[in-house]
Amino acid sequence: MPDVIPADSVGIVSPKIAQFDQALQLACGRTLAQYQLVYETYGTLNAEKSNAILICHALSGDHHAAGYHSMEDKKPGWWDSAIGPDKPIDTNHFFVVSLNNLGGCCGSTGPTSINPDTQQQWGADFPMVTVEDWVESQTRLADLLGIECFAAIVGGSLGGMQVQHWSITHPNRLKAAIVIASAPKISTQNIAFNEVARQSIRRDPHFYDGDYASQDTVPANGLGLARMLGHITYLSTDSLGKKFGRKMRHDHYQYNYDIEFEVESYLRYQGEAFTRRFDANTYMLMTKALDYFDPAAKTNGDLAKALAPATCEFLLVSFTTDWRFPPERSEEIVNALIKAGKHVSYAKIEASEGHDAFLFPLPRYMAALRGFLDRTKQRLNLLENTTAHLTSGEKHHAR
Amino acid sequence: MPDVIPADSVGIVSPKIAQFDQALQLACGRTLAQYQLVYETYGTLNAEKSNAILICHALSGDHHAAGYHSMEDKKPGWWDSAIGPDKPIDTNHFFVVSLNNLGGCCGSTGPTSINPDTQQQWGADFPMVTVEDWVESQTRLADLLGIECFAAIVGGSLGGMQVQHWSITHPNRLKAAIVIASAPKISTQNIAFNEVARQSIRRDPHFYDGDYASQDTVPANGLGLARMLGHITYLSTDSLGKKFGRKMRHDHYQYNYDIEFEVESYLRYQGEAFTRRFDANTYMLMTKALDYFDPAAKTNGDLAKALAPATCEFLLVSFTTDWRFPPERSEEIVNALIKAGKHVSYAKIEASEGHDAFLFPLPRYMAALRGFLDRTKQRLNLLENTTAHLTSGEKHHAR
Repeated sequence: MPDVIPADSVGIVSPKIAQFDQALQLACGRTLAQYQLVYETYGTLNAEKSNAILICHALSGDHHAAGYHSMEDKKPGWWDSAIGPDKPIDTNHFFVVSLNNLGGCCGSTGPTSINPDTQQQWGADFPMVTVEDWVESQTRLADLLGIECFAAIVGGSLGGMQVQHWSITHPNRLKAAIVIASAPKISTQNIAFNEVARQSIRRDPHFYDGDYASQDTVPANGLGLARMLGHITYLSTDSLGKKFGRKMRHDHYQYNYDIEFEVESYLRYQGEAFTRRFDANTYMLMTKALDYFDPAAKTNGDLAKALAPATCEFLLVSFTTDWRFPPERSEEIVNALIKAGKHVSYAKIEASEGHDAFLFPLPRYMAALRGFLDRTKQRLNLLENTTAHLTSGEKHHAR
Repeated sequence: MPDVIPADSVGIVSPKIAQFDQALQLACGRTLAQYQLVYETYGTLNAEKSNAILICHALSGDHHAAGYHSMEDKKPGWWDSAIGPDKPIDTNHFFVVSLNNLGGCCGSTGPTSINPDTQQQWGADFPMVTVEDWVESQTRLADLLGIECFAAIVGGSLGGMQVQHWSITHPNRLKAAIVIASAPKISTQNIAFNEVARQSIRRDPHFYDGDYASQDTVPANGLGLARMLGHITYLSTDSLGKKFGRKMRHDHYQYNYDIEFEVESYLRYQGEAFTRRFDANTYMLMTKALDYFDPAAKTNGDLAKALAPATCEFLLVSFTTDWRFPPERSEEIVNALIKAGKHVSYAKIEASEGHDAFLFPLPRYMAALRGFLDRTKQRLNLLENTTAHLTSGEKHHAR
């Protein structure tokens, strides 16, 4: 619980629901007749509606990026370190929109939602969603909020893929793109890790081919395993080593399969905690969206050509110890953007935290975000304390 | 099937069984009243019994390191590329001994053996075995074969840990130590991966806390998962990428959970194949032996002090893309040996194959082994084509 809401917090925030009744054609060939997106907003949309920043979340993220839902909240949103008054994504200047993606399990329509055709949870029958579908659904949320063009769209990891796709398919709808710890497509190794995660879930007898809701159970063992594995790959070898080393539970080896080293306890806890907040079918979908993203597939592997339609300015950020999305992968994008003649800044940040570094307020990282967004602000002639036109999206909770 | 046995092969070989009736006190506090070890030998032990090389296997290895069991064999032993006439571990000069470790599932006493007290498979009740226990059991095999002092003891990965332990605890019983792709203790990340592997097995409902034999089943799903994960970590990012890239099963995405990318098929196959040849309880034991090994724990973390008793010459080998046992870990051993004033050679081999490189006949790697063993041969005044005293251990299959 925050005893006092910190001065640089966006404070107490409330999620809003946007309902869409226009059918959405998905990349997989299926159609969603209707759906809802849950989102939060921070800061104030200016009269020109030119100061909006869209936050795209990663694998297990959600719409709650900043602030607190109540005074009882133990933790703020997942990117509170970067979003708030005077923070790098400065809510004194920008109107920040953060949503839960389609297929999610935090309020947007997804496998745990009720399928109107059957009045049962969608479960395994929820259609496969892709980065393309997410961007399309996000444009509709922007339409609803009256945002024709974002000042910036920002995302890390899988979120950075959505940013790339926005820049290619909707070049007139963003002025700046911030792509953090991402890749133009995931590596074979990442597909392999995703497959192990999916198999962990599928092999849990409580998964019932995704229809566990009808059996009134959840595949907690499999989902927990998937998360344990994911967790290892989000951290660097060094950060895991520094955090736990060979720290033991007891003075001497116990020679059994209980907790011997503290890192085992940590992983079991992380896995278990995740199963209480996340849905297995959503996790499956998210890993597939990662696998499928490959914008250069349409241009015979030529990423520069794929990125050619983009007109925004880019900031790419990578972290030295990130081995799941290493700097070389960001540099592929940087090099393709240069080749395509785009405006691109690139910051490779010295960080010990691995892929997770993108969630930490590392000074050079925060300075890179701040500097790039300051320039965006100047470029767009955004004035400080613009007249409030719409506060925290109050007009647009369609429910 | 080898149409013709290659000229540089040790040819058709037969495993032998050594039975030990002297109780073995284990590190975990328990005692094995009796046990057997299965082993193979290649080449000829000289009259002085001074030309023996012991091979220590890694996590999922066994005693069948070289040659063929029959003309119907599709593949030779796991290290056939390095062991044979005129090969780096040259059976024209050396008498090679290769065993399956205690706790294994390929013929040595382990969880799948019958517990004489119960006349049932040991299963989960088989005692935890450690690198220390393995070395102790290997000394007894050496005694049985009349080998007072090995010309060299060689091992990769977990095998390299056994070599280190030999050099420390039985310095008079080896003249040379070859430690390949190993570490003085595994990293926190490796403990974490091992824990995920163990949890994969334990969470399989067919595991029955290790007593699956009594239920007439095997935890194939969990063991397969563990192997899939292991497999990813034994290969380098680059080698996986070069081998599979984003090679797809179909022309277009199928948007389902069947095989979409060939790497998924490969992993599923590798996992499945492993479950047909390996025992889950043995896999559990082996990962724990990896976790527990830490010779410097007894010297307050001072590895040089831990290695002080060693009198043999050392060769350390590492591979550039091995991220499970990276070069820095071998270099910790090299530096400690230098600090302790030992003879040590070190070869860091440029290789794209990751941890698995230690099984490949890479020219510089093979040259390093050959060069070091040539020098060992000269040092020990081993003559070529020494008079045969004992051929292929024929006297010593105690059964």
